[in-house]
Amino acid sequence: MSAKKLWDKGYSLHPDVEAFTTGDDYTLDRQLVRWDALGSVAHARMLASIGILTDREFDKLRAELVRVVKLWEQGKFTVEPEDEDVHTAVENHITGKLGELGKKMHTARSRNDQVLVDTRLYAKEMILDIASEAAGVAGALLDFAEAHKGVPMCGRTHFQRAMLSSVGLWAGAFAESLVDDLLLLRSAYEINDQCPLGSAASYGVHLPIDREITARLLGFDRVQNNVLYANNSRGKIEAAVLAACMQVMLTLSRISTDIVTFCAPEFGYFTLGDEVALGSSIMPQKRNPCSLELTRARAATVLASLLQVAEITRPLPSGYNRDLQETKRPLMTGLATTLGALAAMKVAIGAIAVNEDNLRRGCSSEIYATDRALELVQEGMPFRDAYRKVAAEVDELADRDAAREISKKTHTGAPGNLGLDKAAARLEQQRTFWERARQNFEGAIAELVGH
Amino acid sequence: MSAKKLWDKGYSLHPDVEAFTTGDDYTLDRQLVRWDALGSVAHARMLASIGILTDREFDKLRAELVRVVKLWEQGKFTVEPEDEDVHTAVENHITGKLGELGKKMHTARSRNDQVLVDTRLYAKEMILDIASEAAGVAGALLDFAEAHKGVPMCGRTHFQRAMLSSVGLWAGAFAESLVDDLLLLRSAYEINDQCPLGSAASYGVHLPIDREITARLLGFDRVQNNVLYANNSRGKIEAAVLAACMQVMLTLSRISTDIVTFCAPEFGYFTLGDEVALGSSIMPQKRNPCSLELTRARAATVLASLLQVAEITRPLPSGYNRDLQETKRPLMTGLATTLGALAAMKVAIGAIAVNEDNLRRGCSSEIYATDRALELVQEGMPFRDAYRKVAAEVDELADRDAAREISKKTHTGAPGNLGLDKAAARLEQQRTFWERARQNFEGAIAELVGH
Amino acid sequence: MSAKKLWDKGYSLHPDVEAFTTGDDYTLDRQLVRWDALGSVAHARMLASIGILTDREFDKLRAELVRVVKLWEQGKFTVEPEDEDVHTAVENHITGKLGELGKKMHTARSRNDQVLVDTRLYAKEMILDIASEAAGVAGALLDFAEAHKGVPMCGRTHFQRAMLSSVGLWAGAFAESLVDDLLLLRSAYEINDQCPLGSAASYGVHLPIDREITARLLGFDRVQNNVLYANNSRGKIEAAVLAACMQVMLTLSRISTDIVTFCAPEFGYFTLGDEVALGSSIMPQKRNPCSLELTRARAATVLASLLQVAEITRPLPSGYNRDLQETKRPLMTGLATTLGALAAMKVAIGAIAVNEDNLRRGCSSEIYATDRALELVQEGMPFRDAYRKVAAEVDELADRDAAREISKKTHTGAPGNLGLDKAAARLEQQRTFWERARQNFEGAIAELVGH
Amino acid sequence: MSAKKLWDKGYSLHPDVEAFTTGDDYTLDRQLVRWDALGSVAHARMLASIGILTDREFDKLRAELVRVVKLWEQGKFTVEPEDEDVHTAVENHITGKLGELGKKMHTARSRNDQVLVDTRLYAKEMILDIASEAAGVAGALLDFAEAHKGVPMCGRTHFQRAMLSSVGLWAGAFAESLVDDLLLLRSAYEINDQCPLGSAASYGVHLPIDREITARLLGFDRVQNNVLYANNSRGKIEAAVLAACMQVMLTLSRISTDIVTFCAPEFGYFTLGDEVALGSSIMPQKRNPCSLELTRARAATVLASLLQVAEITRPLPSGYNRDLQETKRPLMTGLATTLGALAAMKVAIGAIAVNEDNLRRGCSSEIYATDRALELVQEGMPFRDAYRKVAAEVDELADRDAAREISKKTHTGAPGNLGLDKAAARLEQQRTFWERARQNFEGAIAELVGH
Repeated sequence: MSAKKLWDKGYSLHPDVEAFTTGDDYTLDRQLVRWDALGSVAHARMLASIGILTDREFDKLRAELVRVVKLWEQGKFTVEPEDEDVHTAVENHITGKLGELGKKMHTARSRNDQVLVDTRLYAKEMILDIASEAAGVAGALLDFAEAHKGVPMCGRTHFQRAMLSSVGLWAGAFAESLVDDLLLLRSAYEINDQCPLGSAASYGVHLPIDREITARLLGFDRVQNNVLYANNSRGKIEAAVLAACMQVMLTLSRISTDIVTFCAPEFGYFTLGDEVALGSSIMPQKRNPCSLELTRARAATVLASLLQVAEITRPLPSGYNRDLQETKRPLMTGLATTLGALAAMKVAIGAIAVNEDNLRRGCSSEIYATDRALELVQEGMPFRDAYRKVAAEVDELADRDAAREISKKTHTGAPGNLGLDKAAARLEQQRTFWERARQNFEGAIAELVGH
Repeated sequence: MSAKKLWDKGYSLHPDVEAFTTGDDYTLDRQLVRWDALGSVAHARMLASIGILTDREFDKLRAELVRVVKLWEQGKFTVEPEDEDVHTAVENHITGKLGELGKKMHTARSRNDQVLVDTRLYAKEMILDIASEAAGVAGALLDFAEAHKGVPMCGRTHFQRAMLSSVGLWAGAFAESLVDDLLLLRSAYEINDQCPLGSAASYGVHLPIDREITARLLGFDRVQNNVLYANNSRGKIEAAVLAACMQVMLTLSRISTDIVTFCAPEFGYFTLGDEVALGSSIMPQKRNPCSLELTRARAATVLASLLQVAEITRPLPSGYNRDLQETKRPLMTGLATTLGALAAMKVAIGAIAVNEDNLRRGCSSEIYATDRALELVQEGMPFRDAYRKVAAEVDELADRDAAREISKKTHTGAPGNLGLDKAAARLEQQRTFWERARQNFEGAIAELVGH
Repeated sequence: MSAKKLWDKGYSLHPDVEAFTTGDDYTLDRQLVRWDALGSVAHARMLASIGILTDREFDKLRAELVRVVKLWEQGKFTVEPEDEDVHTAVENHITGKLGELGKKMHTARSRNDQVLVDTRLYAKEMILDIASEAAGVAGALLDFAEAHKGVPMCGRTHFQRAMLSSVGLWAGAFAESLVDDLLLLRSAYEINDQCPLGSAASYGVHLPIDREITARLLGFDRVQNNVLYANNSRGKIEAAVLAACMQVMLTLSRISTDIVTFCAPEFGYFTLGDEVALGSSIMPQKRNPCSLELTRARAATVLASLLQVAEITRPLPSGYNRDLQETKRPLMTGLATTLGALAAMKVAIGAIAVNEDNLRRGCSSEIYATDRALELVQEGMPFRDAYRKVAAEVDELADRDAAREISKKTHTGAPGNLGLDKAAARLEQQRTFWERARQNFEGAIAELVGH
Repeated sequence: MSAKKLWDKGYSLHPDVEAFTTGDDYTLDRQLVRWDALGSVAHARMLASIGILTDREFDKLRAELVRVVKLWEQGKFTVEPEDEDVHTAVENHITGKLGELGKKMHTARSRNDQVLVDTRLYAKEMILDIASEAAGVAGALLDFAEAHKGVPMCGRTHFQRAMLSSVGLWAGAFAESLVDDLLLLRSAYEINDQCPLGSAASYGVHLPIDREITARLLGFDRVQNNVLYANNSRGKIEAAVLAACMQVMLTLSRISTDIVTFCAPEFGYFTLGDEVALGSSIMPQKRNPCSLELTRARAATVLASLLQVAEITRPLPSGYNRDLQETKRPLMTGLATTLGALAAMKVAIGAIAVNEDNLRRGCSSEIYATDRALELVQEGMPFRDAYRKVAAEVDELADRDAAREISKKTHTGAPGNLGLDKAAARLEQQRTFWERARQNFEGAIAELVGH
């Protein structure tokens, strides 16, 4: 078994050490097969361009590596514990097919820069998907806000009834939050969009490799210049990506908290459709908002993942340290969780039935206390005095027509002036950026594999 | 597929919601099969004792449930996504074998108290294993300290050379740390050692169940009384367990940091044997202390797991919330990681070759500066003046016989008076507690399955 | 200014470095004055016992050090930035009064073991206070549970209405949670209750100091034996203390979340008295449960403090590292926050008015669905069939007499059998431990200062 | 005392609740005085523009508010516990001077939007300072890299000696890391650069306020549109800011770890000048890199601050919740710590003496093993065979001329081709952005106060 490992020197680890060291890293590596193979295509192409491989050798390698991608897509290429890691698995496979040529492919690189490039490419694709889903949820929220912009909702502070609000204001708030998240995702995308390939084990190689070529072939925006920084930035870039995911999850967690509350019978503002409400094994009457509760919890998971990655990285000396292997799971967990939560949220928003009657009933007269105080102010009373007067008479406040009251708050961003069009325009700007980014990336990959 | 779910009411979730909600929880549940089946044996026995099942029905159920345990031990019973969870998988299996009787087994309980009891039992066994391994590492460190108690080592502060120390002092420090960890593990064990069974979905049941019986049958120290607390304590008890694991990992992380440092060629204090030193794929000369680096990193993982569990729990309203599902992975990760790190550390300690010459060379004369100052104090000079005098002459300090100097520090816990026997006595006390705990637990389980 | 520093060697730091290094650590040190002075009394007494000080010298030192404690209690002794730290401030003060004798007091110790012993004593007193307050809150909850044990409350899962519960069950759940917290506090107390004095800068001293004496004089349970471990355990013991605080805060956070919810007008279960409800600057009708919201938030603060301390410690090499200074604030914040939150919670519980009518109204008929299903089971129907039948007819369920229903759940820990006496007995056991611990500690301190 | 509070309704809190609720928030508010007063100037100006104040009234208010800023700059305006918070302190002060007019100033806003705008402005200024310092440190590192680009350094992986590197590569790596940090700081700056003023208690006001005016007057890039989002984004934006600070601290922590290591006598690569090396109170020979150790530790503090803020925010319902008060300290701590660490780091880099002899000695022959293997590859041997050959003969490797070897690694970013000019160009681009941002901000503020 260990005979197949790249670094084999003829002795073997104690099984307890081997088990602990390997862990379940190989299961994570299964998600990197495609990127590892494509990274090798780009590396081989570059080696051909500087004369280390012939064009014919490159063609053979590319064909075999593209076949690995295909096999993997069909579920026929996997990584097992005895493979050590995805890089060894792919190289052993190629060597099995092409003999010495497979070994030659590894010239001028190390597993370190392979794992770096695989991870960056993986993160790139996931961020693109996340951005696309996030834009979708933001759009759904804007539509929801538009559809219910005149529906009153009791606005709360301290979880107490505070002032008149609207379903439109509520949904619009989260749409704008997601548009800001897209902004933060973008800088994470950009920091991740630099190619580490060619940094080897942190100190470069003696061969005159051309790092610009591999960067371009793989669709990266630029080369990550300093080879030591390429390795030192492992964990750091993951942390930047996870910080952006955390922001998305913070938004989703708060939407979830609100919806769970609004679905409680005491509120009855919203009812969730069957496609998101789960039953209970012991209570026949229950319809449980499980995906929303899990979204809330998994926001904590993504936060913990960020923390884990950043802390692993924080005290490390320069250069590769094995500690960095432990950043792979939190990165993947964070990205996959964020993507899954967005997809589930989109369904949830589409499954909300808005119970206008209950929402209206929730707007009891006390929530006009501030408005009444401000009216007294407009009639000339100083605010502090108006405040005291209304506080003393709060139970006698007259009910008001909620729809009319909403329409009276007309300043920028208020319930009567939601500015959904402005939010939509900002969202559109984001969409444009992300679509171009995806095209650039997918275009490069398509060219790389020869389509 | 969903027709098999316990709570089925005839409608189905959107696939994105289903995928997000299920997650990979079923893979974690595979580790709970044994405990789920045994929990059902105890529950069924109790139902028999209050007349809900006949003795014959119980015998049939027990036989089938014990068979599930056997199948699982042989790798022939697993949990698949379509099973929803381990509880449903086991119940469906039993119902498949025994028909209506399988359904009857679920009387007077909910999946909530099943997952509670499964998790407690899982944690119990893992803590017992961890305590046993921790005691083993502590013992190995005491042996190592005894074997090298006279070997000088440069003691450091601020990572600078500070004062004379010894290999014995270094190893003894960590042995005592682990003995303290065992103390903390014990209170985690005790808080986990209360039986939640019978709490149902947080509010008890109408049937006159006997919770003392199930607690005793499963080897718990006591019933967790308040049924709402049983559910509210999910996450909380996990956090207590993980906090104890974190302490073990903090100790191991610092041992690891020291060994990694001492193995660097600039130090050369220790050399690690082949059973723990991994090769490099690109640098033929390297022998990498990977398991120690990963121990350091995984201490951060366990910390992040603690944080995740505590944070998920912190803001929840009383009663079961689906958020709690998300505490399962961090608990299991934390326990398994701690156990694996201890096993690997025991190998590492056994694989250390101590290079006395290098250690002696590291004890350069400057480390006697404080000793010289204290000698001047004993000769009557005030400390501050002695300090200034030695600081001015630090390069002229005479070299000393390290072994003799070690023997001169004779107060409690100093290099010349390590008190390894005292630490060994405290360790022995711990061992006694843990062995008795294991006997109690294993005895109860053996009786439960009828051996 | 820097001329007064203990380690002065005649050069000075860049102001930016000095500012960053000092930070606001001196403001934290102000809380340690008493413990630093008392630690010095014990140290001096021990020096007298081994002949380094005469009895007369000790008497003079003690008198002056006790005077420092008095001055500090009167707010007349403080620590300023130019004092460097509390140890230097106290020593300089004593030297100012007693000349050379003040310097001699520092024989055979370093600032490292001073800060260690100061912190342990500080934590000891704070844990004693926290335990006492926690027992008080647990007692208040038991009283509250007893007073309202027959008042029905809608039990929830997934924040949906689930099954019948009671105010007594709700309050009892948290009382039991706090009793468990006291158990965890106890192991934190015990791990903290070992005396580090005499470890010096991590490697002991050449003088024949008697560490048992100082430990006994300061009321510690035992000497922390290995001198390197004494220093390595800085941060580690703080983490154990904070983990116990975190558990208390988790309990308080969840009580807070529930109360905030139950005070919302949609629920109206509870009304908070004026002594805990704050007004709003803009909404006259509001009564805001601010201390409960802050308790919830500060649980996150204590968790972050734990994380901070553990992470600072995790990757450090053996021996003192300056990083450890940064563990002081989170320890102090964590302890003070926990103590403050308990005091505020006790007031809050005393200020709850229970609105029985609203609670009864919240128990709508659907919450009896499970009970109805279980009745069908008792009549012979298998649970799964009963479940389906009730699910289909959930809107037609008859209302029930909540009080009678409560009394029908009679098994251990159920609403009709709360076991408050058992919880009270466990609480009493805890109280006995903590009172004895306090007496031991306070007795030792009183003797030390000569009363 | 409480009579002065804005929301006073004639009853008073229990002292334990008051103490817990107030906490030491007022000490943090002391740092917001300037921004609170300037926010009021902008708000008053806007009120004048919509006819609620006369121009004369605005002039009086501005004059008095600018006086508050001056008093505060002279240390003569502070916030005491009885002031409740900075907003009340300033308003009370103004009302004391101008009577009713002071009260009128509070028209159409709440303390919520005041604290939002104060915090944003505070963060804005701090981020500008941090960016400026970060650029300074990056510049210092580039200079250092240039000055020592030919000095060999042993490159490490797994903290073992690995391959030839250089001091230039080491320093350049961190310079590039900081340039990336500036990119991440920029998106944090942009997300923070939206004006929340006019959102009131989360639901807007009835008056026709002009939010664009206040945004422009205060130098914000844009209005934060949705008024509920303005409040929901509290904590979220703080988290984005702290995530950027965390990245800076991660970079600084790793520089610190390396320098501390390189200053250990076993390495002796660097010697730190007196301006950063602190003495020891007990060990006369020591020169301790305290500010670097603290930087490492405080990176954990900033991370914990991020976690704290994000977690406080995560589970909150929409609208203002008092929990958010608890985000102020971590934000301020995080920003101030990052700024202080950068300033101290700049001094440290300037204080490094590079010991070329020791660095050369550290480049022992084994680090050429990979190079030798690659040479064999170039001579035609497959990499795997070359690897095995060199591994077997590692002790016989010939020493090499390090400087020549460095110059042979010529590909992009390798030791012989550092690309410092490219990094400098990217840094310059960043500087341009930040200087313009500062000008915009300071220009707006200057105009606002009438200069």
